[in-house]
Amino acid sequence: MPLVVVGSVAFDSVETPQAVRERVLGGSAVYFSLAARFFTKVRLVGVVGEDWPAEYTALLQTHSVDTAGLQVVSGAKTFFWRGRYHANMNERETLDVQLNVMANFNPVLSQELRRCKFLFLANGSTKMQLNVLSQCVGPMLTVADTMDHWIRTEPQELRELMGRVDGLVLNDSEAKLLAQRDSLLGAGRTLLEMGPRFIVIKKGEHGALFFSKHEMYVLPAYPTDRVVDPTGAGDSFAGGMMGYLAEQADYAPETLKRAMAYGIVAASFTVEDFSVDRLLKITREDVELRMEEYRRMLTF
Amino acid sequence: MPLVVVGSVAFDSVETPQAVRERVLGGSAVYFSLAARFFTKVRLVGVVGEDWPAEYTALLQTHSVDTAGLQVVSGAKTFFWRGRYHANMNERETLDVQLNVMANFNPVLSQELRRCKFLFLANGSTKMQLNVLSQCVGPMLTVADTMDHWIRTEPQELRELMGRVDGLVLNDSEAKLLAQRDSLLGAGRTLLEMGPRFIVIKKGEHGALFFSKHEMYVLPAYPTDRVVDPTGAGDSFAGGMMGYLAEQADYAPETLKRAMAYGIVAASFTVEDFSVDRLLKITREDVELRMEEYRRMLTF
Repeated sequence: MPLVVVGSVAFDSVETPQAVRERVLGGSAVYFSLAARFFTKVRLVGVVGEDWPAEYTALLQTHSVDTAGLQVVSGAKTFFWRGRYHANMNERETLDVQLNVMANFNPVLSQELRRCKFLFLANGSTKMQLNVLSQCVGPMLTVADTMDHWIRTEPQELRELMGRVDGLVLNDSEAKLLAQRDSLLGAGRTLLEMGPRFIVIKKGEHGALFFSKHEMYVLPAYPTDRVVDPTGAGDSFAGGMMGYLAEQADYAPETLKRAMAYGIVAASFTVEDFSVDRLLKITREDVELRMEEYRRMLTF
Repeated sequence: MPLVVVGSVAFDSVETPQAVRERVLGGSAVYFSLAARFFTKVRLVGVVGEDWPAEYTALLQTHSVDTAGLQVVSGAKTFFWRGRYHANMNERETLDVQLNVMANFNPVLSQELRRCKFLFLANGSTKMQLNVLSQCVGPMLTVADTMDHWIRTEPQELRELMGRVDGLVLNDSEAKLLAQRDSLLGAGRTLLEMGPRFIVIKKGEHGALFFSKHEMYVLPAYPTDRVVDPTGAGDSFAGGMMGYLAEQADYAPETLKRAMAYGIVAASFTVEDFSVDRLLKITREDVELRMEEYRRMLTF
């Protein structure tokens, strides 16, 4: 089943201890789409400025991403992020953020997009996420991501969103902040009481936790030796997860767990090169091979 | 097969955000033994002072631990450690260490102990560990633990030890320190080149990594809701792991992986109460039940 993702499309400048890359393709919706595309058709909803190269749109299109929902605003600039990774590659600092066109991003979905069955609200303001959710008619599964910035600045809206989505995906420090809990397990349980049917807490190099009313589990990250650039790992995780769910047109507990595993596998590829370079080079077969290795690793 | 462990026997005073416990039973060899005893007979080698209550020796004996190697030094005091856990329960600070009898701990093993087939060198000075190793005749499997203190103060001895043991178990920050690497995967590979046939890196609440020439994998911690006191989790992990290996009298790759899983399960019980209280209350059946849950958690 087709999957809609609403989120950022960006230029990223990334500094790692080994190298620097300027203004490469990035953004939550981009990473998400390029990870989900192995499983299903992805419809991307986002906004860019007139500095956006048409080749990037073409690149997305040739990789099974429908860009009809990508709005180009003339006289404006694309969202820009600059970050630096520390030696351990699991900590980063944001050096610069220029919201540009993202500052007023409030998409109006086409009739076709409104009828989508699987919806992912990637990083963006909670108000925007709520607005998109209101436009959708009878989605089967809606999942949202959020960030510390929105947790601090739009707490009311976030509570409303949590009452309306099926799932929430966020990273460990954000989960603790939102739940006001010190332990991750405690945070997961508290967030579950705020409304969503399931909570996924991403732990970066340590994997991800899943919480629902009936189960809780943790899956480790797939250990890859070449961590080149962790940018987009979390969004690719969500893309792999939602892509698989949309393909299966199902979100039963066992499907959700396999979806988590596919998300982890997708993220493990993303970090192996800068930007979306690695995701562009691999095929569904590569994903399945690594999934088999991952499954074998956890069998004893 | 019987298993010998050489390490600390201690009184611990533990402060957590919820409670304080004064001078409870602790020490690396104690936690190790009480986790390994589900699988095999454990022979503990350690030293205590005259403040050591005979009831503790009796307690160990009634839980399948042979204490013939536990030396009581009159006119001296037992090793004492005081620590405080922070709100997230994964970080702790040492408030006080009184080595006492451990300062001169250099055991002379009995003829019976020297012929042991499975040997674990728990926390203690590297010189002492080397001395013990030299006394042993034809062990099948020798594994050592180490700590930042010994990495800094006895680097030469540690390199010698690494050339002589089959396996090394240490925590994540210690692995990075010893290998002089920023990434855990890099650290594991580097340590492997220093001699041991396998390296286990413990990540606390995030599980453990295994490295050998032919494989590398990560297993998550078993997520338990009631983390009361993490003291001894790492030593219990080693106890569960070595206990299972000694029971199987084998260290083939698949046995080692199951041993890692048993170690993780043992550690998950340890943290559920202060001191060794939880370990004393459970049975092999409890261990097997949780092992089944753990296996199910990792199946998708």
